[in-house]
Amino acid sequence: MTANARFSLMIHGGAGPFAHVTDASAAARYIDGARAVVEQGRAMLSAGASALDTVEACAALLEDDPAFNAGRGSVLNELGAIEMDAAIMDGATLAAGAVAGVHNIANPIRLARRVMQDTEHLLLIADGAMRFAEQCGIAQVADDALVTPDAIAEFEAYQRSRGESPRFGTIGAVARDVYGTLAAATSTGGMTGKRVGRVGDSPIVGAGVYADNASCAVSATGRGEDFMRIVMAHTIAAHIEFAGMDAAGATQAGIERLRKRTQGQGGVIVIDHMGRCASAHTTARMVCGWIEHGGKTQIRF
Amino acid sequence: MTANARFSLMIHGGAGPFAHVTDASAAARYIDGARAVVEQGRAMLSAGASALDTVEACAALLEDDPAFNAGRGSVLNELGAIEMDAAIMDGATLAAGAVAGVHNIANPIRLARRVMQDTEHLLLIADGAMRFAEQCGIAQVADDALVTPDAIAEFEAYQRSRGESPRFGTIGAVARDVYGTLAAATSTGGMTGKRVGRVGDSPIVGAGVYADNASCAVSATGRGEDFMRIVMAHTIAAHIEFAGMDAAGATQAGIERLRKRTQGQGGVIVIDHMGRCASAHTTARMVCGWIEHGGKTQIRF
Repeated sequence: MTANARFSLMIHGGAGPFAHVTDASAAARYIDGARAVVEQGRAMLSAGASALDTVEACAALLEDDPAFNAGRGSVLNELGAIEMDAAIMDGATLAAGAVAGVHNIANPIRLARRVMQDTEHLLLIADGAMRFAEQCGIAQVADDALVTPDAIAEFEAYQRSRGESPRFGTIGAVARDVYGTLAAATSTGGMTGKRVGRVGDSPIVGAGVYADNASCAVSATGRGEDFMRIVMAHTIAAHIEFAGMDAAGATQAGIERLRKRTQGQGGVIVIDHMGRCASAHTTARMVCGWIEHGGKTQIRF
Repeated sequence: MTANARFSLMIHGGAGPFAHVTDASAAARYIDGARAVVEQGRAMLSAGASALDTVEACAALLEDDPAFNAGRGSVLNELGAIEMDAAIMDGATLAAGAVAGVHNIANPIRLARRVMQDTEHLLLIADGAMRFAEQCGIAQVADDALVTPDAIAEFEAYQRSRGESPRFGTIGAVARDVYGTLAAATSTGGMTGKRVGRVGDSPIVGAGVYADNASCAVSATGRGEDFMRIVMAHTIAAHIEFAGMDAAGATQAGIERLRKRTQGQGGVIVIDHMGRCASAHTTARMVCGWIEHGGKTQIRF
């Protein structure tokens, strides 16, 4: 097996201040969660699973983990309700599926995959996305099963100090499988206190998610509006495709643009077409785990 | 006044087969409509209006004209209802506003402008966007006032021949004002027979709309999914910024990518940072009007 035929995988669990993480035991929740997902992804990719199936599975696991802001653990909007967004993209075909403003769905990433596979469309929103979920036979769950005590506490804190640093965050996964194909997935509950109907970068192809075998796979996390304005994921892909950069160089160039043009808060994970892994963030912390070229699992927080 | 201080303006009224346009009188409706909007835009820009105000006003006029698929004249979704999308972007600041899945709104582009100016967000969808419209005091109109006999006839034809070449289309405007700032606006009713909640490229920054003084302003029209997958508007901007192309070269490169990677149907209008105008399309026709560097009005259909 050549270096290029070895798989690579990266996952993230959001970027932000994580001000509440002041000791190792508080950090363990994120580090252990990330590690478990990376090991599941390793098992899949090493057994020959596609990048697309792997990023979907990893994203679904991160959605299921209440530590992260997506699926179970999603933050609450201005009315105290859950509205989730997700997207998935296949770098071989540029096929993509996305949903925005959904609720009562345990794994929005799986609904996004169905949009990609079973419709002629790319993005379905709100009631239309829920209608499609029903047509697909995707089980609805009570939003109460997705709302965590942490999300409620943050919402209440947000209400007390209106507008002050609402929590944002996202989960995401990117992979290059042993066949050389890239894929990316991103899923989120958005931003605490967001207006009803606010959509950030997560479900936007080119902003919070992108995959193209000609360049790279990207998943972003942070204050979504900053990433949308500079079309972050596609900016990184363009640096690789048009300027010949590798994952590390393009990621750095993207983060510099985020800082300069939008004073943006957040981070990205990137795997390029050669399977090289890179990540960077402008926030104090980002939860991140990866395997480069089939090597050992690495976790950074 | 130097060449660079002269304003440029382009507008479009959609790309497609326009198979029903078989003689000059059928074409006149589109040509005359486009010309009227370009002349209004000329009056504004020559009097020193900003690019942002001008593209908003031009887009609103195109929304008001029932010949075009946006605002009044929007096509109907699978349930025979109107769902409209719009976005606007300022190339000086990268500020942008967008709405998706709105109804009962005469001018979605004006609502998008309010999202940009009056919220901390970029994209509001569906009920959340309608809630914001009400908070803004934007008057609601009956959807009956927006539905045209043509839209009903097309919906009925679509139902008879399910899936066959549904009409898509968009309106858009891009401008460079006398101060050298770029702006872009795009608005649409989407695609006849689209699923409820389907969103195309029009309200997606980087796909159907983009403006950055460092590169260009772009508005796209066509089968939105094709444009979203290659992040069309930002692809063109990247060719200008990273490869040093002008509007014509970057537009051609973008259209070639659209053809090769997605077999895409549609077209784009582009003004680069020097005020140079370009357009291209893969469809039989595109309605297009422009003024380059303050010169004479040109119309192509």
